[in-house]
Amino acid sequence: MSIIFEKVERLCADAKNSSGSLDLPAGIRNDILLGYADALEKGSASILAANVKDMAHASENGVPREMLDRLMLNKERVRAIAASVREVATLPDPLGSGEVFRRPNGLTIRRIRVPLGVVAMIYEARPNVTVDAAVLCIKSGNCAVLRGGKEAINTNRRLISVLHRVLDRFAVPRECVALIDDVTREGTNALFEMKKYVDVLIPRGSKGLIRAVAENSRIPVIETGAGNCHLYVAPSADIPLAVNVAFNAKLQRPSVCNAIETILVHRAVADKFLPEFAGRVRTSGKRLEFRGDETVRAILPDAIPASETDWETEYDDCIVAVRTVDSLDEAIKHINTYGTRHSEAIITRDVEEARLFRSGVDAACVYVNASTRFTDGGEFGFGAEIGISTQKLHARGPMGLEALTTVKYLIDGYGQVRE
Amino acid sequence: MSIIFEKVERLCADAKNSSGSLDLPAGIRNDILLGYADALEKGSASILAANVKDMAHASENGVPREMLDRLMLNKERVRAIAASVREVATLPDPLGSGEVFRRPNGLTIRRIRVPLGVVAMIYEARPNVTVDAAVLCIKSGNCAVLRGGKEAINTNRRLISVLHRVLDRFAVPRECVALIDDVTREGTNALFEMKKYVDVLIPRGSKGLIRAVAENSRIPVIETGAGNCHLYVAPSADIPLAVNVAFNAKLQRPSVCNAIETILVHRAVADKFLPEFAGRVRTSGKRLEFRGDETVRAILPDAIPASETDWETEYDDCIVAVRTVDSLDEAIKHINTYGTRHSEAIITRDVEEARLFRSGVDAACVYVNASTRFTDGGEFGFGAEIGISTQKLHARGPMGLEALTTVKYLIDGYGQVRE
Repeated sequence: MSIIFEKVERLCADAKNSSGSLDLPAGIRNDILLGYADALEKGSASILAANVKDMAHASENGVPREMLDRLMLNKERVRAIAASVREVATLPDPLGSGEVFRRPNGLTIRRIRVPLGVVAMIYEARPNVTVDAAVLCIKSGNCAVLRGGKEAINTNRRLISVLHRVLDRFAVPRECVALIDDVTREGTNALFEMKKYVDVLIPRGSKGLIRAVAENSRIPVIETGAGNCHLYVAPSADIPLAVNVAFNAKLQRPSVCNAIETILVHRAVADKFLPEFAGRVRTSGKRLEFRGDETVRAILPDAIPASETDWETEYDDCIVAVRTVDSLDEAIKHINTYGTRHSEAIITRDVEEARLFRSGVDAACVYVNASTRFTDGGEFGFGAEIGISTQKLHARGPMGLEALTTVKYLIDGYGQVRE
Repeated sequence: MSIIFEKVERLCADAKNSSGSLDLPAGIRNDILLGYADALEKGSASILAANVKDMAHASENGVPREMLDRLMLNKERVRAIAASVREVATLPDPLGSGEVFRRPNGLTIRRIRVPLGVVAMIYEARPNVTVDAAVLCIKSGNCAVLRGGKEAINTNRRLISVLHRVLDRFAVPRECVALIDDVTREGTNALFEMKKYVDVLIPRGSKGLIRAVAENSRIPVIETGAGNCHLYVAPSADIPLAVNVAFNAKLQRPSVCNAIETILVHRAVADKFLPEFAGRVRTSGKRLEFRGDETVRAILPDAIPASETDWETEYDDCIVAVRTVDSLDEAIKHINTYGTRHSEAIITRDVEEARLFRSGVDAACVYVNASTRFTDGGEFGFGAEIGISTQKLHARGPMGLEALTTVKYLIDGYGQVRE
C-alpha cells in the first residue's frame, strides 16, 4: 500500500470516527456557519494571497482563461461566498423531522431524517465549491472529505484552515472536514476505494469528470449534470411564446446543463416557427449555428446538415440541432432516445398533448410552456443546491439539503416480542 | 455477442419500450392484480404440475431439504399466494401523489411519485417471490425483468404465463413482465450489463447472492438483508424484560436477518442477566450455543471462547456470541464496528442512555426495550415488503412500494423565461 493511499485512508477513517461530533443542535451547526462566514471575511487577505499563488501557477501552466476566471478570487467574491454561507445558515434544519406512527402492539415508530455520515466530493478548480461543499455538509450533520482541482490547492488549504479554526472554537474535531491535499490521480483513485468509511461520493464539474467518477468509484455515486435537453414546438403552439422560450432556453446561458441542445418542431408549424426564431436570434445580435434535417434546411438555408451525432451531443455552446417531427409520439421517442433525463419542454395550447408529453417523457423535470433554464435549486426555492441529479435512485432533479440525509427508524417499546 | 446475451438484451429492451403501457389508473392496475389472483387459483392444477416436475429434478440433484421446502407448492400455498396478491391490490396507490408549490414568477411546480421504469430482480428458487416481484412491480407501474433460481424454472414459467394471459385481457403487452428463462450464469452476467434498459436491480436471497450481485452489477443495486444484529443489556435494564426480549430476538426464528447474533451485556449486570437468560433457554427446551469472552465463560461455564470472527459472523443459527462491556460507549463502538446497519436494540430504564444509543448507533432500525424481530414491512404496517435495505441511499430499512418509485418535477408556465 502506497503512502498516498494510507494518507487518504487515514483522512476518511478519521472523518468516519468523528461523524458523531456533528450530532449537534441546529442552532450550533448554524452558529458554526455564521462563524465561518465572519472568519472568511476577516481572513480574506490570507485567502487572496494563497489565491494569487494559485493563479500565478495556473497562468504559467497555460490553464485556459475560462478556468482561470473560475479559480480567481477577489475581495468581492470572498464577500459573496461569505454571504452564501450565511444564507445556508438561515435554511430550515434538514435533520430530525419525519413521521411517527403507533402500531397495534403498542410499538412507537419514528422515521426521522439523519445525516448520511461521510460525504466525499470531487470537483474542479473552483474555490467557492470547497466552501459550498463544507457548509452544506456541516448544515446536514455530515463529515466532508473534499478533493478539489489541483490548480486551487493553496486557496483550498486556506479556506479549510480558516474553517478548522472555527471548528476549534466549537470543540468540533477538525477531522470532520478534511481536504485531500494530495491532488494526484493516485489520491483520487485511493478515494474511490474508501467504501468502508465514505457513504456517498458526489462529483461536481464537467461531464468527463462525472463519467470517470461514476465508472471508477466503489463508493455509491450521485451522478449530476449531464443535460442534453429538448424543446418541442407542437402544432398548437403560440408561436411568439415558443420563439421567446426557445431563445431563452438556448441562448440565455448556453454553457449550462439546463440549456437546450435540440429543438423538435412539428412539420405543421416548422415554416412559421423557424424563420421567426432565426429572425429573433439575428436581431439580438447573438451568434447561433443551426444544424438541421432536410426540411429545416429548406426553410433555413444557412443550416448545416445534422447527423446522428448531433442528436446525441450536449454542445454547451452556441449551436442548436433542429429536427422536424410528424407527431407528438415521434417527439417523445426522440427525447427518450437521445435525452439525458434532465429537463424537457413542450410548447403547446392543447391540454391533452401537454398531458401525454408530461407522462411520456422520462426526465427529472418536464416543462409545459416555460424555459428549461429554471431547473435549479435556487429557482425551485430549495435555497442551497448540491447539484442536479440525473439518476432516479435516492435523489432526482435539483438536490437540496435533503439529498445529504437518509432515514433512521427509532422504535420504542416496553418489552414487546414477536409472536 | 452470444445468443444468450442477445436474448437477455432483447427482453430488457422490450421491457423498457413497454414501460409506458403500465401508466394506467390505479383502478386498472389493481384489477390486473385481482385478475391474476383469480387466474392463479383457477390455474393451480397446471402450476402444481410444473412444480412437481421442478421438485423431481431438484430431489434428483440433491437439493437440500430446506430449499426443497421453499420450492414446493401445494393447493394451500397457491391459495396463500393469491391472497397476498389480493392484499397488494388493496394497498394505497404509490404513484401520482406528492407536493405542489407556486414560485414567485408564477411557475407551478409539482413533485410527484412516478415508477422507476424497469425493475430487475434476482432471487432464489422460491416461486412465491416470482409472484411477489411481478405484482409489486405492476402495482407501482414498473416493468419487471425476473431471474429466479434455476430449480424453479418450470414453476416460474407457468406463473408468468398465467400472468401474461391476464395482461392480454387488459391489452397490456406481455413484455411488461419478463422472465429470463435462460437460468445459466451467462444469463445473469448479461443482465448485469443492461444499465441502458434497467433502472434498478434488487437481489433477494442469501448473503452470497446479494454480495455477488452488488459486486458485479453495472445497474444500480439496492442491497438487502445482511443482518449482524445486537442486543445491549444496560446496567439499568429490567432483567426479566431483557431476558424475554433476548430470547425472542435470538430464538423465535434464528435463520432470519432481523434475529440477533451478539448480546452485549454491561459488566455490572452480567452475573444477573446471563444465568437468567441461560435458564430461560434451558427451560424452553431449545438448544443454544454460547460463545463468550472470559467474564462470560466465568458465569456460563459451558460457553465456548469467542474470537474476533464471532463478532463478525451472522450465524443465522442457534448460536449466540456474548461480550461484556464496561460502558455504553463501548457497546456502541462494538455495534458500529461489527454491525451491518440493520437492526440494533438496547434494554434500559435510563432515558439519557436510550437517547445516546439511538443517536450513536448507525443502523436502519434502532430499538429501545423491544425485540429486533419487528424489522419487517408487515410489522411496520407497510403492507408489502420488497426487502430490507441496509444501504443509506434511496431506501433504508423495510422497503414498501415507495422504494420502487422515484420523483418527477412537472413545471407549468405560460411563457416564463429566466432573466
